Amino acid sequence: MKTRRTGIQALADAAGVHPSTVSRALNPRTRRLVSETVAKRLETLARKLGYSPDPVAAGLRTRRSGTVGVLIPDIANPVFPLILRGIEEALAAAGYTAIIANTDNDPGRARAAFARLTARRIDGAIIATATRRDALIAQCLKLGLPAVLVNRAADGSRVSAVVNDDRAGIALAVAHLAALGHRAIGHVAGPGNISTGQARRAGFLAAVKAHGLAAAPVAVADSYSVAAGERACAQLLGMGRSISAVVAANDLLALGCYDELRRRGLACPQALSITGFNDMAFADRFDPPLTSVRIQHRVMGVEAARLLLAQIDNPRAAAQEIRLQPDLVTRGSSAAPPLGRKRTG
Amino acid sequence: MKTRRTGIQALADAAGVHPSTVSRALNPRTRRLVSETVAKRLETLARKLGYSPDPVAAGLRTRRSGTVGVLIPDIANPVFPLILRGIEEALAAAGYTAIIANTDNDPGRARAAFARLTARRIDGAIIATATRRDALIAQCLKLGLPAVLVNRAADGSRVSAVVNDDRAGIALAVAHLAALGHRAIGHVAGPGNISTGQARRAGFLAAVKAHGLAAAPVAVADSYSVAAGERACAQLLGMGRSISAVVAANDLLALGCYDELRRRGLACPQALSITGFNDMAFADRFDPPLTSVRIQHRVMGVEAARLLLAQIDNPRAAAQEIRLQPDLVTRGSSAAPPLGRKRTG
Repeated sequence: MKTRRTGIQALADAAGVHPSTVSRALNPRTRRLVSETVAKRLETLARKLGYSPDPVAAGLRTRRSGTVGVLIPDIANPVFPLILRGIEEALAAAGYTAIIANTDNDPGRARAAFARLTARRIDGAIIATATRRDALIAQCLKLGLPAVLVNRAADGSRVSAVVNDDRAGIALAVAHLAALGHRAIGHVAGPGNISTGQARRAGFLAAVKAHGLAAAPVAVADSYSVAAGERACAQLLGMGRSISAVVAANDLLALGCYDELRRRGLACPQALSITGFNDMAFADRFDPPLTSVRIQHRVMGVEAARLLLAQIDNPRAAAQEIRLQPDLVTRGSSAAPPLGRKRTG
Repeated sequence: MKTRRTGIQALADAAGVHPSTVSRALNPRTRRLVSETVAKRLETLARKLGYSPDPVAAGLRTRRSGTVGVLIPDIANPVFPLILRGIEEALAAAGYTAIIANTDNDPGRARAAFARLTARRIDGAIIATATRRDALIAQCLKLGLPAVLVNRAADGSRVSAVVNDDRAGIALAVAHLAALGHRAIGHVAGPGNISTGQARRAGFLAAVKAHGLAAAPVAVADSYSVAAGERACAQLLGMGRSISAVVAANDLLALGCYDELRRRGLACPQALSITGFNDMAFADRFDPPLTSVRIQHRVMGVEAARLLLAQIDNPRAAAQEIRLQPDLVTRGSSAAPPLGRKRTG
């Protein structure tokens, strides 16, 4: 990639400053180290001389790559692009770009992807794939690699995390269904080794108790996928307990419930109300439109990137957890329970 | 990341072979260079001694990184995860992993992402972001970087590509609507600087003519997004031409048509039939379920990865284009035209 270009030295000479000043002024990550007047003058001069900084050379000078690795558990889950948008927005403002690895909920692939990313000289990692006891977190600490968890937390973790208040979120779904008149509600839970699965299940059971509802049946899905949701819903309905609503631990699991209901010839919401979690893209377009706990997708991504950039700047910054408050979006998949009909399973 | 581990030398000593033989045998990318008997013996021994190859060290030995960069134009478009699944499947079988960059349909971001990826020592690139005259392609050729285009081709390109027969695909949609009785069909076209936008538009006009239908109005969307589809559909319906169906150049544009119809209080398919292109994930779950031209998502990804791996093995391999045949999935968004009612716009 050798092309003739106006070099940093030529620009420094023309401006009468040291080349390192040029480098700092034209790099969004270090621009604040230079006075605004000097930075503006150098930008104008760079435009005039047709100088564009070489990101690779800049990386060699600052010993930073300008690249952040993002580990996504399932790129086919339309909630992650929404979070990613926030991450990319905040990174771009600081002159960083994201490279993404998809792990398809496979710990082996997550390990391999992480190894490839760290071998590529990333400056930090945003991890959306964390299990509650995730070896990758220990590895980040050992490598001294700045890292932030997003969406999923880890037990007793010493790295920063941006998560949802999962218990409060699921309580909103239960309160909504209770207000509609549902007295017997089931739960399709997420995997117990993921913080969201564990916290939403605990939050569900606590909310059911707080509302004085019937003891609630729970079926645990073995992954956050439509197919696993369908299997868990079949199990839940096969328990022979009379329920009129299902709170699913995320939107893909809720779509799996749709499929199982269709298979049984049951209408949603007439026979059974269904709620999801995430308010992923397209949730408003399904048939019926999905009532869901809406997380702050963009804010979640922005905050994760912000914490990571702060840590890259100051590796000794203390770890912190940001917990965001979700709200509920009610749509066509939830309605009052059927009258005079109790048993749907 | 210094941990004690059984080294390659120890394993070579135990097996009585040269370390390079161990390296080749345990690397899926080079395993075929070693006899099957030797490879099997070394695998057994490696398991016994607890040796696991270090991907970074292996990369230094083979001067390959084992990493392929994938440029995606819009990670929120649910067609790309389906293609990516094929890419990742074929790469994994050869011991490679993908790192993904999202460009959000922005040529500037594509350039920046490409620069970051090449700076990370990738062995090749799979490009789903190509415009018809894309500077990145020239750059790959100049850098000698193996590259394959997927989904979108470039004019007179000298790099390999895996694309759909876009003209044949859109003709399937027109034939389906003509068979239902539609005589006046409009087109929401994709951007003209992208091969799919250009080819699907040309294919649409040719098919309309071949079926002897009325001269067809066309509105061009400025990007492949729901919002752009909504704007183009409004423009199309505002032309005052009587149409009973819209062929959209992809599924996101079709969803934009849904939105514009809803805004005007028009029902789909009763007032207007809509068809999409890609059969992206969730197309069957929308309200109404979307009739769409189904591309061979997984095959497309597998073939792109296969062409790229062949090129990495043999940089002098001739460029080739693989053109895949789509089919049509008919669902609830297309039906016979309304009787006694011609004007919907």
